[in-house]
Amino acid sequence: MTTFRGIIPPVLTPLHPDGSLDADSLDRLVDHLVTGGVQGLFIMGSSGQVAYLTDAERDAVTARVVEQAAGRVPVLVGTPDLTARRMAEQAKRAQGLGADAVVVTAPLYALNDEAEIARHYAMIADALDVPVVAYDVPVRVRTKLSVSLLMRLAADGVIVGVKDSSGDDVAFRRLLAANESVGSPLSLLTGHEIVVDGLLLAGAHGAVPGLANVDPAGYVRMFQASIERDWETVREEQVRLERLFEIAFVPQGRSGDAGGIGAFKVACARLGIIDSATMPAPLEPLTDADVARIDEILAEVGLSA
Amino acid sequence: MTTFRGIIPPVLTPLHPDGSLDADSLDRLVDHLVTGGVQGLFIMGSSGQVAYLTDAERDAVTARVVEQAAGRVPVLVGTPDLTARRMAEQAKRAQGLGADAVVVTAPLYALNDEAEIARHYAMIADALDVPVVAYDVPVRVRTKLSVSLLMRLAADGVIVGVKDSSGDDVAFRRLLAANESVGSPLSLLTGHEIVVDGLLLAGAHGAVPGLANVDPAGYVRMFQASIERDWETVREEQVRLERLFEIAFVPQGRSGDAGGIGAFKVACARLGIIDSATMPAPLEPLTDADVARIDEILAEVGLSA
Amino acid sequence: MTTFRGIIPPVLTPLHPDGSLDADSLDRLVDHLVTGGVQGLFIMGSSGQVAYLTDAERDAVTARVVEQAAGRVPVLVGTPDLTARRMAEQAKRAQGLGADAVVVTAPLYALNDEAEIARHYAMIADALDVPVVAYDVPVRVRTKLSVSLLMRLAADGVIVGVKDSSGDDVAFRRLLAANESVGSPLSLLTGHEIVVDGLLLAGAHGAVPGLANVDPAGYVRMFQASIERDWETVREEQVRLERLFEIAFVPQGRSGDAGGIGAFKVACARLGIIDSATMPAPLEPLTDADVARIDEILAEVGLSA
Amino acid sequence: MTTFRGIIPPVLTPLHPDGSLDADSLDRLVDHLVTGGVQGLFIMGSSGQVAYLTDAERDAVTARVVEQAAGRVPVLVGTPDLTARRMAEQAKRAQGLGADAVVVTAPLYALNDEAEIARHYAMIADALDVPVVAYDVPVRVRTKLSVSLLMRLAADGVIVGVKDSSGDDVAFRRLLAANESVGSPLSLLTGHEIVVDGLLLAGAHGAVPGLANVDPAGYVRMFQASIERDWETVREEQVRLERLFEIAFVPQGRSGDAGGIGAFKVACARLGIIDSATMPAPLEPLTDADVARIDEILAEVGLSA
Repeated sequence: MTTFRGIIPPVLTPLHPDGSLDADSLDRLVDHLVTGGVQGLFIMGSSGQVAYLTDAERDAVTARVVEQAAGRVPVLVGTPDLTARRMAEQAKRAQGLGADAVVVTAPLYALNDEAEIARHYAMIADALDVPVVAYDVPVRVRTKLSVSLLMRLAADGVIVGVKDSSGDDVAFRRLLAANESVGSPLSLLTGHEIVVDGLLLAGAHGAVPGLANVDPAGYVRMFQASIERDWETVREEQVRLERLFEIAFVPQGRSGDAGGIGAFKVACARLGIIDSATMPAPLEPLTDADVARIDEILAEVGLSA
Repeated sequence: MTTFRGIIPPVLTPLHPDGSLDADSLDRLVDHLVTGGVQGLFIMGSSGQVAYLTDAERDAVTARVVEQAAGRVPVLVGTPDLTARRMAEQAKRAQGLGADAVVVTAPLYALNDEAEIARHYAMIADALDVPVVAYDVPVRVRTKLSVSLLMRLAADGVIVGVKDSSGDDVAFRRLLAANESVGSPLSLLTGHEIVVDGLLLAGAHGAVPGLANVDPAGYVRMFQASIERDWETVREEQVRLERLFEIAFVPQGRSGDAGGIGAFKVACARLGIIDSATMPAPLEPLTDADVARIDEILAEVGLSA
Repeated sequence: MTTFRGIIPPVLTPLHPDGSLDADSLDRLVDHLVTGGVQGLFIMGSSGQVAYLTDAERDAVTARVVEQAAGRVPVLVGTPDLTARRMAEQAKRAQGLGADAVVVTAPLYALNDEAEIARHYAMIADALDVPVVAYDVPVRVRTKLSVSLLMRLAADGVIVGVKDSSGDDVAFRRLLAANESVGSPLSLLTGHEIVVDGLLLAGAHGAVPGLANVDPAGYVRMFQASIERDWETVREEQVRLERLFEIAFVPQGRSGDAGGIGAFKVACARLGIIDSATMPAPLEPLTDADVARIDEILAEVGLSA
Repeated sequence: MTTFRGIIPPVLTPLHPDGSLDADSLDRLVDHLVTGGVQGLFIMGSSGQVAYLTDAERDAVTARVVEQAAGRVPVLVGTPDLTARRMAEQAKRAQGLGADAVVVTAPLYALNDEAEIARHYAMIADALDVPVVAYDVPVRVRTKLSVSLLMRLAADGVIVGVKDSSGDDVAFRRLLAANESVGSPLSLLTGHEIVVDGLLLAGAHGAVPGLANVDPAGYVRMFQASIERDWETVREEQVRLERLFEIAFVPQGRSGDAGGIGAFKVACARLGIIDSATMPAPLEPLTDADVARIDEILAEVGLSA
């Protein structure tokens, strides 16, 4: 029953130095990922810096990625907005542009209890033809989606999967067990780059790692080895990707949005996958020293343009 | 220099039982507030349940309140959205519909540092002709706006005031002192219903109390007494309003959005100010027992239809 | 019925430069406070840096302060430890040394619910002859004591007062009302230095301000004016004390324990009230630049050695 | 260089129904664990409900466990108290009673920065002959120990290991990599029961699972399989232990200290390992319904008295 499996990177949104969408770089990034073997693309995620895009820009990205993916892999689209009816509007536009699924958080700004959040998801699913994946990201949304809520939404047919960026691996582990005990209606995907090996061993269906923009093939090799239950290879790939992930810690004293995602953009730009590492205002570029250190790490793990 | 002074209620958004905007009740509520003597109206705030409204509904409310206020008092409009360019779009629409000022939070969903938040406010102010009031509401936005950030935004002419719903009265007190020491460029307004007396004594310019939807005249009397430096009367009014504020604690075990605001809506409906206490989905109505208890409290403080 | 009223400073613990207790400075500090007109002394509080003292040092301080106070004002003693039976041991030693009351937090390290915290307080009160004041300090203890819990403890005769350092003035305001409605069994004291005026207007019985170590007479004048309901004088004293309180913000980038309390110690040392501003290890002294700036602020508000 | 490896259960503290220490049950529990094959014993941990014990009771437990372990496995002793000099007193008593190492948290109640916490650990290590293991448990202590702090303490020879109960597996993973890159001076042990498989794959040296009180042999089999790099067996054992761990979620609406640890005590009592599931006051026993459900889960995973 499980809908989505494998490596589904949260696609970066390449920008020209003036801040406008760089559609050519986006095309190349999509090809880089699909050629790298990924099983899906997740656009309008945190790595895509969706919060900084207008609706017109969201639509331009969605249309372009759907066209460039050309059915080779499914395209999942995030819909962040404040509450259910607003998110449903975002989701319906994405659906109209060809999204294969939407990825939906708990409400923002609102202060809701669990019953209200359950109805929130039902309101959105009812408004759509494409499936809904729940996005659990309390660092941005304040709310942790509980195991019991997610399993209830699964039982009601409201959601088909979970992208877990909660950092709570004990809860994710319990979710894996609860899901398996009822026939695995949910695709359970981790959003954390460097714990993928252990979670694949534990039965996760895949991962949504921002770092896969830089090295999709590495994550795909790890996932493939997990299918073959070759855990030593899984671990070796994870160790190498963990070394690569140190690029995310190069920018010191930067905000959550500028630091890690900035490093991913710099790495992609240095590898020639995209033209510019520009981030949307009010985020400012990484320093030259940070770029130089990222170059070193890329070379250490065997990546170069 | 101070732009806004006095009682500026965050206006409830009356809905028909089917969830659609009840424009006639909104007109009556506006008249109730203006007749009650308030010095301004703040729409699209948390009490207005703005998070649950679509952009079309926001615009309908804004246009209607501006028309009904008819210049008797200024209309301030909230612009909650994810980030600066999106909030600027919200703000420009409000400005086009006649807003006298906009009320702007820190970014949502985004993870920004203080320098980025400063640029966020500057980006929005640069896009507008009307003044910007900063809205400090960490319970919804996660970010506390620091005294030094707010004073820097004041010095740069980016903001003209602060609506403080942070619950941190020590910081608000320091903000009052810092603002006064440079000639009071900022209007400093508290959003907390039952500490208004002490903050007026401390020099606050006014308040934005949700409870003023129910009893604007009481808050106006308190503010007027503070102008006359009649602190015993100030205190007596606050004590009475504090008794009334117990309606917000009647709903037990309800969410932050359904409980307190639900009680304000019930009170206004029971007093005949609006037709229905309906809240937007996925929020559900208060129980009959809660309504009965709210009736009792209204009677205890001398309010009745 | 109210047991404690007025200004009850949390007494600093003066140390010799080698870190040992400076009992002579402690005597002078006690005399400075009692001569300044305070209505009580609170030792073993956060300002006393109790966390860093051994039990032997706690006992030495308690014995010395009780002796030096010599019955002129009551001595309240904090008992921080992990849980009820351990705190009861601390409290019994304090009682044996002459404490007039003990000041007790929720459990530390333990993860308890409200019913367990209620029993925690009852266990401690049952073990003692002196009264118990509840100390609400969530920044250190993680737990906020609710209005309903405190009023239940009052009704059961478990506590006689609350020292509120929660920063939640809305809740404190509701506690004032709830307490008054049942005959004021509790002494309600705020621990926040610069919101005392507004809370006295609201009916607080007194304050426990760390800054009163530096200027007890100023706080005593403010309290006396509140008794006379001379609110303009109350406010003027608060404004002056607020200027003095800026010493607490001089140390930038320092920890919660080293910054503010360090500034109070420096001020007392510069004014000759105590000999040395030494803080217990692992806390390090403030910089010379910080000391110089504190000197300036002391002079600005008219304090000098 | 790594000092500690394998399964080191945090030993429960059995009590008689009157709340006094049940030393005979403690002996049997120690034998149950040692016979089960564990590589060490950790007493005075959260599972041992150390927060509720007096110093005299701590010493009684330590002496008894050291005697009963009789050198078969090392005994690690927790030292929770407020700050460094107090914790050093606890640690020296434990050392005098035969502890092989002490397990030390960041300061409690105090508000310290990272430099102060580094000195805190150095002060304690300097006072002792036995090695120090850092205990990272922010849910109780408020402070997360950073990767850079822990590696600096390792480089300075202050600590020999980390018990990680932080729930932040991304940080733990980075700690594993940082430690390995400098020759593995630290023993890195996870405190989370159901993510042990993935963390062993990632290179963790062992685990400190409260659930191992109930089924030490299961955890020992998992650890042994990891030594043999038989990851399918590792996973199977973890899946079974995860089913058993559902006992921790049986008590609904109970506090953090009463729920999970209460379930472990009930399970041990039902299996005859200890006589009574009594918890220290003010904690109350689990309900009969909870006990019945725990019995069922024990039977489901093949455990019975």
